[in-house]
Amino acid sequence: MQVYTEPITRLIEEFSKLPGVGRKTAQRLAFHVVNMNKNDVESLAKAIVDAKNEIRYCSICCNITDTDPCSMCSNKNRDKSIICVVEDPRDVAAMERTRDFNGMYHVLHGVISPMDGVGPDMIRIKELIQRLSNEDVKEIIMATNPTVEGEATAMYIARLVKPMGIKVTRIAHGLPVGGDLEYADEVTISKALEGRREI
Amino acid sequence: MQVYTEPITRLIEEFSKLPGVGRKTAQRLAFHVVNMNKNDVESLAKAIVDAKNEIRYCSICCNITDTDPCSMCSNKNRDKSIICVVEDPRDVAAMERTRDFNGMYHVLHGVISPMDGVGPDMIRIKELIQRLSNEDVKEIIMATNPTVEGEATAMYIARLVKPMGIKVTRIAHGLPVGGDLEYADEVTISKALEGRREI
Repeated sequence: MQVYTEPITRLIEEFSKLPGVGRKTAQRLAFHVVNMNKNDVESLAKAIVDAKNEIRYCSICCNITDTDPCSMCSNKNRDKSIICVVEDPRDVAAMERTRDFNGMYHVLHGVISPMDGVGPDMIRIKELIQRLSNEDVKEIIMATNPTVEGEATAMYIARLVKPMGIKVTRIAHGLPVGGDLEYADEVTISKALEGRREI
Repeated sequence: MQVYTEPITRLIEEFSKLPGVGRKTAQRLAFHVVNMNKNDVESLAKAIVDAKNEIRYCSICCNITDTDPCSMCSNKNRDKSIICVVEDPRDVAAMERTRDFNGMYHVLHGVISPMDGVGPDMIRIKELIQRLSNEDVKEIIMATNPTVEGEATAMYIARLVKPMGIKVTRIAHGLPVGGDLEYADEVTISKALEGRREI
């Protein structure tokens, strides 16, 4: 039953399609838009269209960018001999926030996941392999998530890359800083034990 | 620190301004937009702009509408002698879902709330009073929320309307259907007792 006027109903429907936005949230957002001032509404709408239209994938690292190659790939100050492989662009942002890494990135845009029908050829693995044959790379850091799919993808890529004579490393698993042994799961604790280092 | 490319950063900022949308949700929405197909993105943006541009307030009931008077006020089959006064357009939708009410509505767009600096002249009370002097109304149902502000607003309006010789009623308070006495608060239970009826 349509209880709202047409433009509101349509906006509620559009908002409902977004991830994590249910009917109630969509309603709240729609009424918020009606009460926003006109310029703010237009800049929101423009940002949405622009994000779609101006975003492309970097031809080197496959990260999202508005210039090609992206600002990181064209940065002369970064170390081109080390590539950190991540699942998606948000992971690049997370790595960058640490300010500890000054190498290059490669964004897979997913992980190998047979359960979801995602095979190795559906993520950006061949782009990575091609990149390795063109550039002089010394180390690949596999920074996919510590999930079953993330581990499998790391293993798969490691097996492809090792024969090329390139060192492949995996980010460490263990207790998160500020975490509590009592509340950590067994797998994390056993990984933390396994990865122990002399102090 | 800007870790994403400019169009994404701008979209994340725009989404963050929406109510209930934090930084993480805004990021998720922004990346979702990038992965949506172009037509869907454009129809989302258009719905946002249209909702703002096409929505106006009905000159009779103050509900949001795209035509003036709104479809309810111009509906000849509705009973014009009874007006249900609600806080906002969502309440009209909630009432309409019951299919039990066939009268008119009046949307206040807020409640009197001295704590938030909202006085009687900042909500649509004078529009209601004017309407009562023009139309032949027999009953006003006060359907503001059962909160302190909702009650106070109902009382305030009742005191204005009663001298005009119009009956003013308040929606019943009591236990919600399917509710549990054990978990109901004292005020609700005492209201339910107070409003008991012979069966």
